[in-house]
Amino acid sequence: MDTRKHVEVCFTPGEYEYYKDEFEIVVVIDVLRATSAICAAFHNGIKSIIPVPTVEEALEYQKLGYLAGAERKGKIVEGFDFGNSPFSYMREDFKDKEIVLTTTNGTKSLHVAKDAEVVVIGSFLNLEFLSEWLAKQDKNVLCLCSGWQDKFNLEDTICAGAICDFLINTGNFISDEDSSIAAKYLYLSAKDNYFGYLKSSSHRRRLKNLNLNEDIKYCLTPNQTKVIPILKNGKLVQI
Amino acid sequence: MDTRKHVEVCFTPGEYEYYKDEFEIVVVIDVLRATSAICAAFHNGIKSIIPVPTVEEALEYQKLGYLAGAERKGKIVEGFDFGNSPFSYMREDFKDKEIVLTTTNGTKSLHVAKDAEVVVIGSFLNLEFLSEWLAKQDKNVLCLCSGWQDKFNLEDTICAGAICDFLINTGNFISDEDSSIAAKYLYLSAKDNYFGYLKSSSHRRRLKNLNLNEDIKYCLTPNQTKVIPILKNGKLVQI
Repeated sequence: MDTRKHVEVCFTPGEYEYYKDEFEIVVVIDVLRATSAICAAFHNGIKSIIPVPTVEEALEYQKLGYLAGAERKGKIVEGFDFGNSPFSYMREDFKDKEIVLTTTNGTKSLHVAKDAEVVVIGSFLNLEFLSEWLAKQDKNVLCLCSGWQDKFNLEDTICAGAICDFLINTGNFISDEDSSIAAKYLYLSAKDNYFGYLKSSSHRRRLKNLNLNEDIKYCLTPNQTKVIPILKNGKLVQI
Repeated sequence: MDTRKHVEVCFTPGEYEYYKDEFEIVVVIDVLRATSAICAAFHNGIKSIIPVPTVEEALEYQKLGYLAGAERKGKIVEGFDFGNSPFSYMREDFKDKEIVLTTTNGTKSLHVAKDAEVVVIGSFLNLEFLSEWLAKQDKNVLCLCSGWQDKFNLEDTICAGAICDFLINTGNFISDEDSSIAAKYLYLSAKDNYFGYLKSSSHRRRLKNLNLNEDIKYCLTPNQTKVIPILKNGKLVQI
């Protein structure tokens, strides 16, 4: 009997329902930029993040006195102090704080995955540390890409492919779905130069038009932190 | 002003709604095996095919005296004479006939795309002839992959990537979506050996278990025919 666990890739939140039943751990990925920003926030000492799917919910928390961030289409929503730039979380006054966040894609995929046994946050920033942790859990892992407005995106897929590649190389995991096989192929052809490989990516072009090149470089630089944000009772905390 | 047309790829019928608005031509692709079988059928002289989404509808046509085929999960449905093996259409008595067909994935994507201005059938079998025809139309082209049970599959994606590659190389088309960029990457790494490349594909494994290796080889052999099936008034006919 094959006792290996599965590591698979789901390209968009909308397809999650076709994959979800067989996985104990879901890794939510939104490289540009929500899950990168979340990793950066914990790396910089934030205590917890309450992810909410809508701007309205973020506003309600703000009225209650919470520090609240909101991003839509790559920009900070009017009336909020921060969006999903990783750099906006590197503030002294964020240390040990609980904040609220809504983003275009990332918090949506967190929302669809919220009932999984374990939900953790993945990005290039915590790639190796997270992969090593996943390898030790002996559980089936689904990498849930956030995509862009319900569509496939390259950067999340490549990050998911990197996690598949790491886990398969331990000898204790297999990938069975075509989406996972494709993600691994794309990762292997991208891994020597993420920035160059993604230069044609639609979302990178979109962010570049908003002058977010520094954000992109930061988000595509692997292994900058050893944090694993995990969803507990509706809040993201450090594992 | 950039006057080039778009050629893009949608990975599954479920995502079609996020793509559809900007394309005059939809190419429906289900390499293993519906759209390959449809191309084979027209190559062998069939007059028209009525695609229906459900087995029940196929049964009703059968009761009316139509030759009707039905496939689910790779097998011919009980009570029907043929499914979606291309070889089952190479019968003398099918010449000049009108037949009815329902398949797991292929007729579903035909159904979701039915309101597009132009809906044509693509497969490796008619790849070059279809691509040359598309190049002459001066319209935006969406390659709609049928996937496998609402999930991404590799063989349709690679076929779609081949169409993108051909059209982009004419200089008159661009791809903008990450799905199209990924499809093209996957095609370029697969094109020298489709059969070897797809050996790990989940659907190929599934069909192999049903002893359909001859079907698979046939469906992965490009440019065997110069037919372009097109949807007219709910029926597929030769263009």
